[in-house]
Amino acid sequence: MPKALITTIPFGDKDRLPLELLENSNIDYLINPLGKKLTEDELAEIITDFDVIIAGTEQITTKVMDRATNLKMISRVGIGLDSVDLIAAKERGIIVSYTPDAPSPAAAELTIGLMLTLLRHVHLSNLEMHNGKWNRFFGRRLSNITIGIIGVGRIGTAVLRHLKGFGSPRILVNDILPRSELNHEFKIEWMEKEEIIKQADIISIHTPLTNVTKNMITKDLLFNMKKDAIIINTARGGIINEQDLYEVMQAGHLSGAAIDVFDLEPYNGKLREIKRCLLTAHMGSMSNDCRTRMEIEATEEAVRFLTGKDLEREVPQEEYDVQRQGL
Amino acid sequence: MPKALITTIPFGDKDRLPLELLENSNIDYLINPLGKKLTEDELAEIITDFDVIIAGTEQITTKVMDRATNLKMISRVGIGLDSVDLIAAKERGIIVSYTPDAPSPAAAELTIGLMLTLLRHVHLSNLEMHNGKWNRFFGRRLSNITIGIIGVGRIGTAVLRHLKGFGSPRILVNDILPRSELNHEFKIEWMEKEEIIKQADIISIHTPLTNVTKNMITKDLLFNMKKDAIIINTARGGIINEQDLYEVMQAGHLSGAAIDVFDLEPYNGKLREIKRCLLTAHMGSMSNDCRTRMEIEATEEAVRFLTGKDLEREVPQEEYDVQRQGL
Repeated sequence: MPKALITTIPFGDKDRLPLELLENSNIDYLINPLGKKLTEDELAEIITDFDVIIAGTEQITTKVMDRATNLKMISRVGIGLDSVDLIAAKERGIIVSYTPDAPSPAAAELTIGLMLTLLRHVHLSNLEMHNGKWNRFFGRRLSNITIGIIGVGRIGTAVLRHLKGFGSPRILVNDILPRSELNHEFKIEWMEKEEIIKQADIISIHTPLTNVTKNMITKDLLFNMKKDAIIINTARGGIINEQDLYEVMQAGHLSGAAIDVFDLEPYNGKLREIKRCLLTAHMGSMSNDCRTRMEIEATEEAVRFLTGKDLEREVPQEEYDVQRQGL
Repeated sequence: MPKALITTIPFGDKDRLPLELLENSNIDYLINPLGKKLTEDELAEIITDFDVIIAGTEQITTKVMDRATNLKMISRVGIGLDSVDLIAAKERGIIVSYTPDAPSPAAAELTIGLMLTLLRHVHLSNLEMHNGKWNRFFGRRLSNITIGIIGVGRIGTAVLRHLKGFGSPRILVNDILPRSELNHEFKIEWMEKEEIIKQADIISIHTPLTNVTKNMITKDLLFNMKKDAIIINTARGGIINEQDLYEVMQAGHLSGAAIDVFDLEPYNGKLREIKRCLLTAHMGSMSNDCRTRMEIEATEEAVRFLTGKDLEREVPQEEYDVQRQGL
C-alpha cells in the first residue's frame, strides 16, 4: 500500500474530499503529527518511508530527501516552490507538481482588504474602540493614490483586476518578465523597482521567493519610500527583510505595513511590538474555496502519480531554471 | 460681523482652506469648544447668538432652535439629515443645506475594506498575532458569496461599483425608491428586505436614519440571518438595534459584524466585549479628500448665505417629505 505524508495543515478540514480521494485509491496517509509547520529536522525525522509528500511550505532539502529513501513525488499544495530544492529533486528522480492557479483569487482579495484596512487605519481604530477610546482616524482612498505592484504574475494580475472597480489610481508595476499583454487590459506604468519604491503610496509584493527576491526590500529601500507610505507582503517571508522593516517602522517611517508571511512561521518576532503593522497568519490562500481547491488538486495529482496516470500539474522547466540561475 | 458656530470636529485640520474662506469673508467663527460631539443641551447652551451652524451630526432640535435667536442657516457637513429637525427649521425660516455627494466615495471604500476584513478575519488574526498566537483563519471570498445591499443611493451605488472588480458575487438589493436605472449598470436582484436578510452572506446598510429605518434591524431579523453571515453598518447608529445585535452575537449567531456608527457617540457600549465585532469610530467619511471636500462645500454654502449669494446645496423638498411622513 503506497504511503502519502501530508505536511500542510489544516488539511481536509472544511471538505473531506481530498482524504476520500486517497482512501478510495487505497493510499495510506498520515497528516502532520506535530500540528505545526515542520522544521527541516522534524520533516527528515518523519519522512523515512513515504512515497509521496503532499506538502506545505516546509523546507524539503537534500537532507530531507536523503532520509526519504522511498520518496518519488512531491505534490505542493500551493504555488511557491522556494521551499523545495528542485535541482536536488531532479537529481534523485523525484517528480514535483504544484497548484499554481488555486490560491490566487484568495490572495488577491486579501491584499485589497489589507490595503483598505491600512489606508483607513481600521485595525488601529478597532483596537482603540475595544479599549473604550474614540479617535476618528483620517485616511486615504485607493482611488486617488499611487499603487505599486511588484510582481504581476497570477496574483498581482488578480489584484489589478480588483482595482478596476476603484476609479483611477495611478498603478506602477514591475516584473522580471515583460508580460506586455497586461497593457491591453490595464492602465499601468512599467517602472524600475527603485523608482516604484520612491513614488508609490502603497507597495504590494507578489513575487516568488528566489535567490533574486530574497532580501529584495532592505532598509535603504524602505527609507526611500514616502514617509506615510504603506508596504504589504502576502508573498513570502524574507522578501522584505523583517529586521529592517522593524527598525524602519520603529524609527517612525511608513504609516503602515501588512505582513502575512514570515521568515519563521509560526511567527513570534518583533514586528508584534508595532501596532500599525497589521499581522496575519499566512492566510493568503485561506479561503474555503481556494484552500479546498488546492488540497483537491494536489491530492488528485498525488493519486495520479501513485496509480500510474499522466500528471497534469508538473512543475514546468522554467521553475527549475529560476532555481538554477539563482544558485 | 456675522458669527458661525462650527460644531463638527475635526475641522480645518488637514486643510485650512475652510477657515480661510470664513476669514476672507469677515465671518467670525468658533470651533466646537468641547472637542466632542455635542449633546442637545450642550449645543443649546452654546448656540445663543450665532447666525449659522456648520454642523456635524449632533441633534439640532426645537429646543436648540428656540435658544438660537439669531440662527438663520444650518450647513450640514455631510449627507445625513436625521440630526436636524427639518420641519422645525422650516417653521422658523431657518435654511438647511448639506453636502450629499462629498462623503460617498470614502464611505463606499471603507465598506469594501470592512467586508474583506470580516470575510477573512483579519482583525482577529491581527489581534492574536500581536499576542503571539498563530491561527490560520479560514475565510470566504467576496467573489462567490451573496451580498445584500440595503439602500442603494449614492453610497450603496458606489459600493456596487467597487464590487464590479470582484468577479460575480450574487448581489441582492433593496431601496425605498425604485432606482431602476441601476439595472442597466449592475447585475442585481431586487428583493424584499426580509428575504435579503435570509439569503445574504453579507448585509451592508446604506440607508439614511429616518423614522422608517430606525430599529429597522432588530433581534428577530438578525436571528433570521445565516448563522455565519456578516452585517455591516456604516450608515447611522440606531438602524441596527445595538442591544439586539449584542445579544444575538453573544448567543453565537453571525460570524462577524462591522459597526462604524452608534446610538451614542463617542461609543463606549457593550459591543466592545465581542471580539468578532469590528468597531470603528464613525470614520465613513474620514478620508482626507472627502473630509476636506465636505468642509469646503459646507463652508462655501455658509459663506454664500451670509454674503447674500444664491445657495447651491439647499436640502431638497423630498428630504422634508421623508421627515414629515415619518412623523
